[in-house]
Amino acid sequence: MNFHSLLSQWFPLLCLILSTTISATPYNIPKLSAIKGKILHDPETVPASISEDFKTLFYTQTLDHFNYRPESYATFNQRYVINSKYWDGANASAPIFVFFGAEEELDYDLADIGFLSDTAPRFKALIVFIEHRYYGKSIPFGTMEETMKNESTRGYFNSAQAIADYAEVILYLKKNLSAQNSPVIVIGGSYGGMLASWFRLKYPHIAVGALASSAPILYFDDIIQQTGYYSIVTKDFKEASESCFETIRKSWSEIDEVASKPNGLSILNQRFKTCAQLNNSSELKDYLDNIFTEAAQYNHPPTYPVTIVCGGIDGAPEGTDTLGRIFAGVAAYNGNRSCYNINAYNYPSQTNIGWRWQTCSEMVMPVGHGINDTMFPPSPFDLNQFIEDCKNLYGILPRPHWITTYYGGHDIKLILHRFASNIIFSNGLRDPYSSGGVLQNISDSVLAVYTVNGSHCLDILTAKQSDPQWLVQQRQIEVEIIEGWITKYYADLLAFKQY
Amino acid sequence: MNFHSLLSQWFPLLCLILSTTISATPYNIPKLSAIKGKILHDPETVPASISEDFKTLFYTQTLDHFNYRPESYATFNQRYVINSKYWDGANASAPIFVFFGAEEELDYDLADIGFLSDTAPRFKALIVFIEHRYYGKSIPFGTMEETMKNESTRGYFNSAQAIADYAEVILYLKKNLSAQNSPVIVIGGSYGGMLASWFRLKYPHIAVGALASSAPILYFDDIIQQTGYYSIVTKDFKEASESCFETIRKSWSEIDEVASKPNGLSILNQRFKTCAQLNNSSELKDYLDNIFTEAAQYNHPPTYPVTIVCGGIDGAPEGTDTLGRIFAGVAAYNGNRSCYNINAYNYPSQTNIGWRWQTCSEMVMPVGHGINDTMFPPSPFDLNQFIEDCKNLYGILPRPHWITTYYGGHDIKLILHRFASNIIFSNGLRDPYSSGGVLQNISDSVLAVYTVNGSHCLDILTAKQSDPQWLVQQRQIEVEIIEGWITKYYADLLAFKQY
Repeated sequence: MNFHSLLSQWFPLLCLILSTTISATPYNIPKLSAIKGKILHDPETVPASISEDFKTLFYTQTLDHFNYRPESYATFNQRYVINSKYWDGANASAPIFVFFGAEEELDYDLADIGFLSDTAPRFKALIVFIEHRYYGKSIPFGTMEETMKNESTRGYFNSAQAIADYAEVILYLKKNLSAQNSPVIVIGGSYGGMLASWFRLKYPHIAVGALASSAPILYFDDIIQQTGYYSIVTKDFKEASESCFETIRKSWSEIDEVASKPNGLSILNQRFKTCAQLNNSSELKDYLDNIFTEAAQYNHPPTYPVTIVCGGIDGAPEGTDTLGRIFAGVAAYNGNRSCYNINAYNYPSQTNIGWRWQTCSEMVMPVGHGINDTMFPPSPFDLNQFIEDCKNLYGILPRPHWITTYYGGHDIKLILHRFASNIIFSNGLRDPYSSGGVLQNISDSVLAVYTVNGSHCLDILTAKQSDPQWLVQQRQIEVEIIEGWITKYYADLLAFKQY
Repeated sequence: MNFHSLLSQWFPLLCLILSTTISATPYNIPKLSAIKGKILHDPETVPASISEDFKTLFYTQTLDHFNYRPESYATFNQRYVINSKYWDGANASAPIFVFFGAEEELDYDLADIGFLSDTAPRFKALIVFIEHRYYGKSIPFGTMEETMKNESTRGYFNSAQAIADYAEVILYLKKNLSAQNSPVIVIGGSYGGMLASWFRLKYPHIAVGALASSAPILYFDDIIQQTGYYSIVTKDFKEASESCFETIRKSWSEIDEVASKPNGLSILNQRFKTCAQLNNSSELKDYLDNIFTEAAQYNHPPTYPVTIVCGGIDGAPEGTDTLGRIFAGVAAYNGNRSCYNINAYNYPSQTNIGWRWQTCSEMVMPVGHGINDTMFPPSPFDLNQFIEDCKNLYGILPRPHWITTYYGGHDIKLILHRFASNIIFSNGLRDPYSSGGVLQNISDSVLAVYTVNGSHCLDILTAKQSDPQWLVQQRQIEVEIIEGWITKYYADLLAFKQY
């Protein structure tokens, strides 16, 4: 993965988005979505239809919570969705479970994030999903294209504004429902999990607790090694199959070698059945990088995509060469097709457009291949280059230290051991992003709940009959912890409400 | 105190500040400064010179921490002052005491806030004072007049931006001094005390603890009664002298009665020796209101201004009528003068100009006389009128619920009992603003330390030989609590730093 030009592939859309000429794009920080990458690269994906119990509403949201210029008072419609089917109501002070939308349209979350609906009956809880500003139907200035092409309108698109939005929506709802005493539990996955844990830290008066699933809150600044992510991808493949790992490890230089021959790119086009002609070998390598990382990140049961990829690679007929094996892995993962779209991961979905901005402004996660640390070609994260690329792309400088300034992250046990309470950091250790997760208990109520075999955000997806026991158990533990928080909250409510 | 026009008195300056015609000004929320009101109404007050151990420096501060528009990246010079005379240095991880400037030029704080210098030797602490944005030498766009007259440049003037400034300065200093392990204690008084306590809540990774002196963090929204402030002023006077209280209580209607006569205002001019002609009786009543509240708020030993005012009122020769007694109180408080400047409290100091903006944007503290609750004339706080006045003045609407949305405040014991740590809320119960203070322990490290006889921010002023025992003791308790935090921090540092 190099500082390659994704832009040419995006040109039809990005020429609308960007007002200046761009020659490079920032380093491609792996996507974070709670939900498997299909929404990132398949324009024809349509979210599953959702239950009629969900009612869609809109809140008139303040554009800028931290400023009092006249423009700050502009408002936009923020989508949220409510399901009160299981709720025991305000008089019972029954709980409210709030899912924090992240870098995707809320529709996908409603279809796939089942934790709230699966557990609400037990808690008699109200279910609320709130969409993140600048995604889906919650875009302040018309379409995403219009909003993002204007340097004045995209500046309000950041995490501090987003959690302030959530604060306002929740307070409004509680007031509107006369449910001031109902405990609120906030839930999010991936970037949304970061938001949930940060919300509990910043707004303890609004949320009693947070479930932060696969939230790599330590993947900022210099807290962890930049190779953390790709080391786990590598480990996942190596554990699945040593020979598969070896094949991938040596494939990169072979691709380069073929590419350097006369007609080398045509050979690669043929061997990988690319739909479009390759412009350079990086396009192919990035495509493969995306497949391997996606397979590892969303290595969900019962199919286990890493096993599928390696099944293809290892299962190719004897005598198949390295590139042939890699292609067999691609075909196993994506199915047999007449051709393969190497630009699939660059599809200008809202997630791709929005997350690029977010990483180029504040969510600077230094994810790199390192030198010889992983099965991927050498490619250390280069902050200076990243800053330069972002500046070329958006005309502003990223603030790589802001996340740790505002939310912390360094010395997290030292800091939070005697501060904060009621946060679950859940992870699956096979998820590459677990490298930036909290994997140790911080105190007796700031807890790490992880599974050795789990992948990205698995615990908050809809429960299935086929779920392995360790996953059932992880969810069970989370539910019991949350139940403990709520029980204590009700006791506190009796004891302290009158202060 | 009514919705009177302070504007006419301010005209020479405010006509520069405001671009629209203004017919009313917002309700006059009593000033909050840690330091006695002289800086609010005496243009000739010059702060005492400070020790040469203090070095003045400037930090290049980001204008807008919560936005990524190109304008957000503008910077301004933020003043801070350091005294390293007592510091044991970074290698010893010696503490850093940081005073948060509030709604005044830092020069006054340096002269009067002695707590840091008085206690630093014991802790071998570094002393830092940071000026609040938009005051003193830390004004982003030239002079205060220029900055405040422009609706685009004043919008960044708010508490969330201010504490983010403090976060950046502290992190910069710690890095610069290689003092990453030094515990930071933040200290503030009044509005600055609110900032200190909010900072500990929002940035626990930067400050180990906070001393929030006379911080009325509960005087927002509907948390406490609007009459809290004036009820304590009333109580202070009643306790000093029942007859003094009675004289004041009945004076308001007598002033109105005289004012309603032909030549009534001239009579009042003569009786109160006003330097300028009164335009209406409200001007006089507001002036008296200011004197009484100031005397109560800063009722410091050894002089005890309330006793001085009441000494004047009660000590007038027998047969003196009510207005004569009130005037005797004024003369006792202000000294014998050829005339008295009834506009003194409207002097356009930075504090008056800045605090008016802050109260009209987010710091909406509903302080009212109520109906018959105090010794003051009926004048309940009227939020709708306040909003209307602010809109006329600045063209924007106040956000009266934002402070409780962002920082909390409702059900504080319920919320913080199991969250947060290491905050001292210190108060003196004779301070009218203690009505909005935290006067109960919240947990075993979020503590209320108050004195029955104390006044506004007394504990953080420079210690004097004449200080009464209860004040010496209050400071002693605070020092011991802070010492306990630091001791625990060092133990934690050993235990948890390696996470």
